[in-house]
Amino acid sequence: MKAFLECISCIIRQTIEILRRIVRSEKKRQRILAAVIGKMAKVDIHKMSPPEATKYAHDEIQRITGIKDLYKEPKKQNNREALQLYPYLKRLVRKARDPLLMAVRLAIAGNIIDYGALAEFDIKHTVKDVLGKKFAVSDYKRFRRDLKKTKLLLYIGDNAGEIVFDRVLIEELIKKIEVVFVVKSKPVLNDVLMEDAKMVGLDKVVKVIKSGSDFAGTIPSKGTKEFKELYKSAEMVISKGQGNFETLDQEKKNIYFLLKMKCPSLGRVTGFKAGDIILKRSR
Amino acid sequence: MKAFLECISCIIRQTIEILRRIVRSEKKRQRILAAVIGKMAKVDIHKMSPPEATKYAHDEIQRITGIKDLYKEPKKQNNREALQLYPYLKRLVRKARDPLLMAVRLAIAGNIIDYGALAEFDIKHTVKDVLGKKFAVSDYKRFRRDLKKTKLLLYIGDNAGEIVFDRVLIEELIKKIEVVFVVKSKPVLNDVLMEDAKMVGLDKVVKVIKSGSDFAGTIPSKGTKEFKELYKSAEMVISKGQGNFETLDQEKKNIYFLLKMKCPSLGRVTGFKAGDIILKRSR
Repeated sequence: MKAFLECISCIIRQTIEILRRIVRSEKKRQRILAAVIGKMAKVDIHKMSPPEATKYAHDEIQRITGIKDLYKEPKKQNNREALQLYPYLKRLVRKARDPLLMAVRLAIAGNIIDYGALAEFDIKHTVKDVLGKKFAVSDYKRFRRDLKKTKLLLYIGDNAGEIVFDRVLIEELIKKIEVVFVVKSKPVLNDVLMEDAKMVGLDKVVKVIKSGSDFAGTIPSKGTKEFKELYKSAEMVISKGQGNFETLDQEKKNIYFLLKMKCPSLGRVTGFKAGDIILKRSR
Repeated sequence: MKAFLECISCIIRQTIEILRRIVRSEKKRQRILAAVIGKMAKVDIHKMSPPEATKYAHDEIQRITGIKDLYKEPKKQNNREALQLYPYLKRLVRKARDPLLMAVRLAIAGNIIDYGALAEFDIKHTVKDVLGKKFAVSDYKRFRRDLKKTKLLLYIGDNAGEIVFDRVLIEELIKKIEVVFVVKSKPVLNDVLMEDAKMVGLDKVVKVIKSGSDFAGTIPSKGTKEFKELYKSAEMVISKGQGNFETLDQEKKNIYFLLKMKCPSLGRVTGFKAGDIILKRSR
């Protein structure tokens, strides 16, 4: 989907958050922000997806600060915190009447956890919240049915921390089918990289590949050769999170989007509200 | 107080809201937004208050569109809607154990009503919410005591719609003292102008003067001659809303700030959280 004018204010807000975290001097923050704003003033926002628009800002911050991975520390911390929850998540699945559905719900709960520091208590609280929440749309029945016809499923990851929740769902899926997990090729926001997959041990569970993306979404036609081939041969795709949804929503492919809607403007094209919990099959 | 980096993303968000409302063509919206962003990139945000920073964006929108009053219609609508509530508000005050405190609470409730269209039901709901809410800080006792030593009180208004709630408080105040109501000199956001005071009949109740401000705050030293004189001679000032708070917080004057805190960044300097209900005397 194409970006909105509103994406610009969101990108600038995000830029300020990053600068507060990685740059000490307020003067330098202001200088970098001015450069980012100058860049965004020239971007034709309607010609690209929201994650592609975001890339302009990130590239500028990275160029000026020389910092390649703007979320390195928060990502590690989120992985660590989520890993501590892993036994708890596994227990929830084991005890569930429908373990697959529980694992799906947990994977979406993982999408709610943002990069900021969260105490174990808070994550558990978030998880319980999501477990009690009604899906805005749920294509779970069809999801379940499709799985039976599937040999290979491509699982496109989203964020650090969340990846532990993805692992829990993947461990349910691989009881029946083959799963390949997809990470971003280069650092962008708190999106998962190969190092995150390794940190949470997902590389020991399934094959992990890079998408080719260096922005917070996935465009198959721009993917690596390996990604393109697996994308073509996989009977099913799971796409996690909003950035992947924003770039894959027009694909003609059997994709299941698992996400929490975080953006109020998206409602204009999707009909979903910010805060909605979604398990939706592509058209 | 000085503006924050965060003000920039907020101003751009606000600009987009205005453009969606007053400009039809998405292309034209984008062109104006780019101009505003270009302007904001050059502003030294730390050298001015938030309302002054906002003015840069508004001036640019007004210059390009040729529209002088960007909130003309919403303001009228808010006045109309709030006027319908006037008998209800008066009844609440009449029945209250402490009518003055009730009127103060209602004046703050009025500050919560934003420019968007609100059904009568929603406004009543908001009012009830505020009446049940605890003040984050309340200098009411001192406010009450100060009133006894006061002959003239300057009441600096904030928004349309809200002005009806101000009228209710003012009608309590003038039972004992003289009150002069202050409006902005030129259109900015949904801030009250002379025409709003007339529309809600406040000009029949008290004297109404212009502040000299053409931005969403009040800087006494830049005020009209009349404002400056009354500001000097008034023993008490009531300042409504966040914009006035942001520009008057450093004043050495007996000012009572009545507002709902709307900005999360302000917490950094004030200690208040977004959503807080405040009746606070100046230092």
